[in-house]
Amino acid sequence: MACGKEVAKEIEWRIKVEEDDTLKRRVVGFMWAATAGVALKLWKFVKKAWELGVNDPRKFIHCLKVGVALSLVSLFYYWKPLYDGVGGNAMWAVMTVVVVFEYTAGATICKTVNRMCGTSLAGFLGIGVHWVASRAGEQYEPIIIGVSLFLLASAATFSRFIPTIKARFDYGAMIFILTFCLVSISGYRVDELLDMAQYRMFTIIIGSILCIIVSVIIRPIWAGFELFVLVTGNLDKLANSLQCCVARYFDGSEASDEESDKVSEKELLGYKCVLSSKATEEAMANLARWEPGHGRFNFRHPWRQYVKIGASMRSCASCLDALIGCINSDNKASDEMKKNMRSISMKVGAKSASVIREIATTMRNMTKSSKLDILVTEMNSAAQDLRSLLSSYPNLVNAPSHNAKRSAQTETAPSDIPQAAKVEIPLLQIIQVVTVASLLIEIVARVEGIVETVEELSDLANFQPEKRVKSKQHSPDSKISPDQQIDEETDRTLQMV
Amino acid sequence: MACGKEVAKEIEWRIKVEEDDTLKRRVVGFMWAATAGVALKLWKFVKKAWELGVNDPRKFIHCLKVGVALSLVSLFYYWKPLYDGVGGNAMWAVMTVVVVFEYTAGATICKTVNRMCGTSLAGFLGIGVHWVASRAGEQYEPIIIGVSLFLLASAATFSRFIPTIKARFDYGAMIFILTFCLVSISGYRVDELLDMAQYRMFTIIIGSILCIIVSVIIRPIWAGFELFVLVTGNLDKLANSLQCCVARYFDGSEASDEESDKVSEKELLGYKCVLSSKATEEAMANLARWEPGHGRFNFRHPWRQYVKIGASMRSCASCLDALIGCINSDNKASDEMKKNMRSISMKVGAKSASVIREIATTMRNMTKSSKLDILVTEMNSAAQDLRSLLSSYPNLVNAPSHNAKRSAQTETAPSDIPQAAKVEIPLLQIIQVVTVASLLIEIVARVEGIVETVEELSDLANFQPEKRVKSKQHSPDSKISPDQQIDEETDRTLQMV
Repeated sequence: MACGKEVAKEIEWRIKVEEDDTLKRRVVGFMWAATAGVALKLWKFVKKAWELGVNDPRKFIHCLKVGVALSLVSLFYYWKPLYDGVGGNAMWAVMTVVVVFEYTAGATICKTVNRMCGTSLAGFLGIGVHWVASRAGEQYEPIIIGVSLFLLASAATFSRFIPTIKARFDYGAMIFILTFCLVSISGYRVDELLDMAQYRMFTIIIGSILCIIVSVIIRPIWAGFELFVLVTGNLDKLANSLQCCVARYFDGSEASDEESDKVSEKELLGYKCVLSSKATEEAMANLARWEPGHGRFNFRHPWRQYVKIGASMRSCASCLDALIGCINSDNKASDEMKKNMRSISMKVGAKSASVIREIATTMRNMTKSSKLDILVTEMNSAAQDLRSLLSSYPNLVNAPSHNAKRSAQTETAPSDIPQAAKVEIPLLQIIQVVTVASLLIEIVARVEGIVETVEELSDLANFQPEKRVKSKQHSPDSKISPDQQIDEETDRTLQMV
Repeated sequence: MACGKEVAKEIEWRIKVEEDDTLKRRVVGFMWAATAGVALKLWKFVKKAWELGVNDPRKFIHCLKVGVALSLVSLFYYWKPLYDGVGGNAMWAVMTVVVVFEYTAGATICKTVNRMCGTSLAGFLGIGVHWVASRAGEQYEPIIIGVSLFLLASAATFSRFIPTIKARFDYGAMIFILTFCLVSISGYRVDELLDMAQYRMFTIIIGSILCIIVSVIIRPIWAGFELFVLVTGNLDKLANSLQCCVARYFDGSEASDEESDKVSEKELLGYKCVLSSKATEEAMANLARWEPGHGRFNFRHPWRQYVKIGASMRSCASCLDALIGCINSDNKASDEMKKNMRSISMKVGAKSASVIREIATTMRNMTKSSKLDILVTEMNSAAQDLRSLLSSYPNLVNAPSHNAKRSAQTETAPSDIPQAAKVEIPLLQIIQVVTVASLLIEIVARVEGIVETVEELSDLANFQPEKRVKSKQHSPDSKISPDQQIDEETDRTLQMV
């Protein structure tokens, strides 16, 4: 019996150990799985981030530029003669570089100028207030400083709400408050206020200049050029979307393989970029005006006009959005109607697209296009044709003979529809086609709006007539990609320096 | 002769003096005019700024809050026991308040958390790198510090391009770079690095906490609430625009006095606010998630859903934009057609507007509306009526008897149009009406899109069914203005503290 008990105990113990083992194994397995999960997530995150940089290598370059600027400014600490000159105030140069160095040259210059102006203005005011307060006696000193601090800080904070100041001097107002506080309050405790202010101002100026030099010389990224690329790129996207949408509707599902479907889907939805780029355009235009002349853009290039062009493009894109909505709605049109309208509608689409593309080319070449007027006239006459086709419609519905004539005009006369169907079509079946046609006519009107804003730009920026430019060396520019253009610009800047 | 010469000289002299006088007077006059011009401009600027504040008094309040926070933090300098505690490091508390204090509580909390996390993380890393470098010997110290600075600064700068980090931790990444630089570089020159880091961290935390307290307690401006007011207000604007646009088109120029014209013009263009508020909505949604529960919104309120609602509203608004464009185009419809479609189209417009308004009310009350389903059904059936009216159209054009029946149905049957005109209308004259009708049907579809996104919100945020809420005290909230609501919330918060 005792032996039996022992055996039983041993078995129990074995089971327990095995249970413990499975528990351990489970815990270890779980931890491995968790670690692997976290590692996988991290790996995906890093991969995504890496792709972000590979897609636009200028991001990598910007990071290296920040590293270079910080390494240069840290020489103030490492190099003894420099450190002896400014001492602990070198901190302000480092701080300036970190805070002021931005992605585009325009943003860097804007912040730099703001920082220098804000600091010096507030510095003088702070020293003045401190001087007045110190004359007023020990009792009143903190009161005078405190009240002036409260009032000036409130006023400067309020100024940041005013749109014109917000657009240009928002950062400057913040720096003004910061410096005024530091100077006027520190003055209460620090004795050599003027020395301190002088050193700080000096180091801030050094940091600012370093930032501007690194930002402008090493592969500069100009906000103005980015804006230019964005707007002209959006023009192309809009043109592609427009043409693609009309062609899809009237051609039906001709291209059926998946690959080309994906491509055309991407093209079709390009107009969404136009609709969503308002904020970026405005930010870029605000920054671009701080930039010196670069490439073919001079200092006073009318960047605000690009925002107007963007607005007119958005107006056109929202019409296109409605058009695509109508096309995707349940209410389908009869195939026959579509075939009748096909040729002329596609002409309107193609003509408007080519007007938009010509505008983009005009902007890229910075020339007054000689073709644009002709293209606009062609677009309008196509729209007029569409209108007259619509006006002839009741006859078209009732008289098959007339219809045959029209079909002949559309070049691809299909004959697989029974002739009887042409006699009468209820309005419900033509609603969609009529809507599409009428939205196309509206889109033509809005494309003219874009043409107007671009013509204003060409006047403001003194675009040259095409022929004179062709004789110069500028024209090949239009054929190179934005990135190449940036390279060229950088090379030119580097040669200049 | 001599006398004659003298007289002549005197006259010459007098002329000269008079010339001098006129020159002087002109210069003085010019200067006066210039001064007056500048003063006038300045006056206009100040007046405009003042109006900006009067229109939204919370801006004034924010400025006063900044003043209060700065005055409080400056006690570190004025009050001797405090100054003895932290010394010159008080500067960091002041700096924190200036840099971190933002208009909305969400932005302040976001920056505060970012600043504290970025500072502490970089502080530890910086001290670690400094420790390693100091062990490596004097020769290698600057190299190790410099290389680590370059790598970490570049990496942190790159992280600011990654969308998820940019949306939440952009400021933190900048502060990380700043602190790491200051700590690791200063370590090369400053002996008591740990003490310095400790004091700085301490003052930054004090400044941050002060900011949060002032921002949240004194009349807080919640980003979430602002987003809520923006989206619900935009819903109302969209509804008004839609109804106003349809009514204007079909009613023609009935209201002719200038005052009401201006009002309706403003109402008509309200949808433009919807189109242009994308950036604001996204910024607010990003900030709102940092905020604690306030008013009826808890901490994890689904703010991202408001961005989705905004997107569906924009899709509807862009269709409305196309509709308004078509209405304003040259291609006018015949009056008769308009009269035939009038009643049913206006019904569609009114029904969609009331659906949008009901959505807004739902969101304001945070309830699941019992009426919404009925209203959506009514809207859809009105759209269906419009579709069937269109489908019956060929008969309508050719048969006056049927037309009379329709007119009777529209309640206001006008009889001033010659009956002969009703016999046949070319398609050109009905294009506009057909387009308007078909865009209205598309708008109805997009309004359903808004309803869907709002229903998602009501699921995510656990909106209560209407009846249960009516018995509670919440329901009167819907009738008060946003400003009053803010007051109430502030009062509640104040009572809490």
